[in-house]
This record gives sequence, C-alpha cells and structure tokens, in this order.
Amino acid sequence: MPNIHAPPPDLDRMFLALADPSRRAVLERLAEGPASVGELARPFSMALPSLMQHLRMLEGCGLIRTEKVGRVRTCRLEPHAMDAASEWIARQRAVWEARFDRLDAYLQILKNEEEQKP
Amino acid sequence: MPNIHAPPPDLDRMFLALADPSRRAVLERLAEGPASVGELARPFSMALPSLMQHLRMLEGCGLIRTEKVGRVRTCRLEPHAMDAASEWIARQRAVWEARFDRLDAYLQILKNEEEQKP
Repeated sequence: MPNIHAPPPDLDRMFLALADPSRRAVLERLAEGPASVGELARPFSMALPSLMQHLRMLEGCGLIRTEKVGRVRTCRLEPHAMDAASEWIARQRAVWEARFDRLDAYLQILKNEEEQKP
Repeated sequence: MPNIHAPPPDLDRMFLALADPSRRAVLERLAEGPASVGELARPFSMALPSLMQHLRMLEGCGLIRTEKVGRVRTCRLEPHAMDAASEWIARQRAVWEARFDRLDAYLQILKNEEEQKP
C-alpha cells in the first residue's frame, strides 16, 4: 500500500544544500552521469573529507544517491528530487501572475465603464 | 550603455534565503501582493527584530524590495529575482534529460543492428 502520508519534501535542507557552489558543482557534474567519489574529487581539488561532507549533505536531502561496490562509491543524481524546490518557486510565480491577471481584468472593467458614460 | 558585465545572480545567497520556512512564508504572503512590515509581523507572531533580519536578508539578495513612506515600510516581491534559482535547477534537468535521450538513441541503434542480423 503506498504511503499516502509521505512527509513533505524538506525544502529547508534542499535549498540549504543548493546554497553552496561546491555542492552545485557536484550536482552539475552528476547531471552528466554517475561518477565515483574519486572522479568527483579530482576537478574540484577539494580535500576528500570536505567532499564527503558535501556528498553526505546532498544524499541526506535526497538530491543524490550513493552506492559502494567494493572500494568504489558511485554517486548518482536524483533528478526529480529538485522538482520540489522548483515547484515551490513556480507556485509563487503563479500566485503573483494570477494577481496581475485579476488586476488587468479589474482595469478592463473600469475602462469599459468609463467608455459607456455618455 | 547597459552594463554587459553585470554580476551573475548570487545563487548562494538566494538559495540560502529560501532555506528558511519563515522567509519562504514571507515570500508566499508577498506573492499575493505588497504588505507593510506590520502586516507581515501579525500572522507570523514573530518578534519584530527577527522579522526585520529576515526581510533584510530577502532584500539583500534581491528577492524583495522595501520602501519606507512616513513611518510605514512596505515590502514587495521581486518575482523575477527567483528566476535565476529555478533556471539553474531547470538547466540541470535539461542536461540530465539530454543524457537519457542520447542513451535512448544509442539503444535504438543497437536494436536496429540486432534486427538486421540474418
């Protein structure tokens, strides 16, 4: 039975994860395909403990998935995990635009009333 | 002359600003229309200094604009300021999807080759 009470996506942790250029660079790299931790470390010239901390944060909020086979840990993007963040932004824009549509409609009514005056 | 060297939008500060439920609630309220600081403070039952700090952060990264007339400071959403954040997310998804399209095309080639075998 599907869990209909799934917790809402944790926007706090997701936006916080996206607020760091190294973490965004990791996500940009993983959008091109899976990579091992070693492959990720190379271009960033970042100390491995720092990188691991970033990866743990990205995995903790569901933005990436990692899997260890033997000695190699492979990281993959969870592309739909970011949907919650972009949907939140899109929703605010929709509310904003609906407000302007209502304002437009109201101005049109005022204009029509003005034109109908003798 | 337009500034062609405009600094890139500060995604770090923008995502950090979005990583707090009170700040997102302020943005959600402002999507419905401008509000004074007093109007914003009421539903959030938040101490004014905390609210002011959130507002300064939102204004600092360009997500809102505030204007003081007399004793009243009015806050407004800058709806297009969030575009940079949603565009960054959309770009990662596009890279990801292009990768799957290439994979699909490659699998189709393999399938066609397989079918053409005697």
